[in-house]
Amino acid sequence: MKMEHDLHMTKGEEETSYFKNSRLQEKALVETKPVLQKIVMEMCVDLLHPTMTIVDLGCSSSDNTLFFVSNVIKAVSYHLEKFSGHPTELQFFLNDLPGNDFNRVFQSLQRFRSSIDMDHKGEPIPAFYIAGLPSSYYTRLLPRRSVHLFHSSYCLHWRSRLPDGLEGKKRPYPNEGNIGIGATTRPCVVKMYQEQFQKDMLLFLQLRHEELVANGQMVLTFLGRKHDDVYSASLNRLYGLLSQSVQSLVEEGLVEKEKLDSFNLPVYGPSMDDVKALVDQS
Amino acid sequence: MKMEHDLHMTKGEEETSYFKNSRLQEKALVETKPVLQKIVMEMCVDLLHPTMTIVDLGCSSSDNTLFFVSNVIKAVSYHLEKFSGHPTELQFFLNDLPGNDFNRVFQSLQRFRSSIDMDHKGEPIPAFYIAGLPSSYYTRLLPRRSVHLFHSSYCLHWRSRLPDGLEGKKRPYPNEGNIGIGATTRPCVVKMYQEQFQKDMLLFLQLRHEELVANGQMVLTFLGRKHDDVYSASLNRLYGLLSQSVQSLVEEGLVEKEKLDSFNLPVYGPSMDDVKALVDQS
Repeated sequence: MKMEHDLHMTKGEEETSYFKNSRLQEKALVETKPVLQKIVMEMCVDLLHPTMTIVDLGCSSSDNTLFFVSNVIKAVSYHLEKFSGHPTELQFFLNDLPGNDFNRVFQSLQRFRSSIDMDHKGEPIPAFYIAGLPSSYYTRLLPRRSVHLFHSSYCLHWRSRLPDGLEGKKRPYPNEGNIGIGATTRPCVVKMYQEQFQKDMLLFLQLRHEELVANGQMVLTFLGRKHDDVYSASLNRLYGLLSQSVQSLVEEGLVEKEKLDSFNLPVYGPSMDDVKALVDQS
Repeated sequence: MKMEHDLHMTKGEEETSYFKNSRLQEKALVETKPVLQKIVMEMCVDLLHPTMTIVDLGCSSSDNTLFFVSNVIKAVSYHLEKFSGHPTELQFFLNDLPGNDFNRVFQSLQRFRSSIDMDHKGEPIPAFYIAGLPSSYYTRLLPRRSVHLFHSSYCLHWRSRLPDGLEGKKRPYPNEGNIGIGATTRPCVVKMYQEQFQKDMLLFLQLRHEELVANGQMVLTFLGRKHDDVYSASLNRLYGLLSQSVQSLVEEGLVEKEKLDSFNLPVYGPSMDDVKALVDQS
């Protein structure tokens, strides 16, 4: 799998598209809205720069993409009324892998601008500019000390790549019958995923640290697990069901067994302790 | 015609695509390369900011899009060798209308990065970041005082819209038989085009002035005419041939006469004096 090109949500507006199947992700955005509002308010007060640069990492291409943008605009508008000062301009960067359907997002911008104008009729709103940023967030994305706020929702459980031991089509397949961490995944494979998570997350924190201004902030929501037991993660149960479905297709002769055995998803949901340990280490 | 969505170069890679028919535009880029290099060199010396922000207006989606980016990187690399100081990071914004095929440009970025690395093997190159900016350049695109260099090649002869008198399908059609300024275009229609050009260009200069940093620069190449006679512009001869072709289709009954009579292109090629007068006025 070539991550940069092949890893993206299902395009279009069909029944099986991400556009029609992103309610869960929307729920997460609604739930984290108060946190986002609080952070934005604090930044409005603290920052002296007249432009606030905001980056959404893993923006995808559904209505959720602009729901985040609209939440920030609302929070800043509230500030404008209250303090009537800076910051007056917002520069948004919507980031995702180059395989994401940016054309779709861009073509909805005019409608989005009209809806913002309608929602804020008569109230002052900050000038805002929206750009697309097509690159993996496991690389540098923007100039040094240029970003005030990073946001990412339901995205950082995706790894930058498959661990070395799982990549390629060499027999024996270490994770036979699974497409991620499943009930029969061996501890050595779990360790591979964990090490990839650690490498990725440390790299991510280091890159964003270089890009953030002093006092910059990050709001990161991603799938993990509540308990230490790595097999208990809801993410694993989800992909466990998916691998069972593929297993049925194998049994019916519709998919080759080898395809299931060799295929793995670059995904890992860490525990709170996993994340805390890495933040402390970074 | 909805400019924001409908006005774009022909997509894809077919024989009739812009991708396969942009040699003339490439020639213009090659010819203006020395000017660009000189400007970039001067800016490298003058600017104290560690990041240079560069915007290509009307980037379209052929290889030319990244040819410009590569020219700037080359010019700055030369500077890095010579002065080994700032600026060390380049932020590119590729701008076009939202109907442009940004997905195509974004998906070619990985190959582009590899080719830059190959071309500069062993030499220091500045870190660079590329974003897409989907919006008409007859609106504000970026925050106040944030851009060091604006570039636009073969694009500014496009108007923001059709003049009021040419828009819509009201009979009698004032520019019957033509799709732009043709041999039989009446002086009143020429005047409409000229007035639209003046409005657009003044607006363009005002918007870019707000976005440029102090000492910021612009390199703008666009189609115009050498002489005062508005009918003599090569742009008009080009579209004259096109309207003759459509006329043939009308005569063969393949296109309705009304469609030709009511259709006009939002394009006007000014003389040097036209442009100078507006720059002085702005």
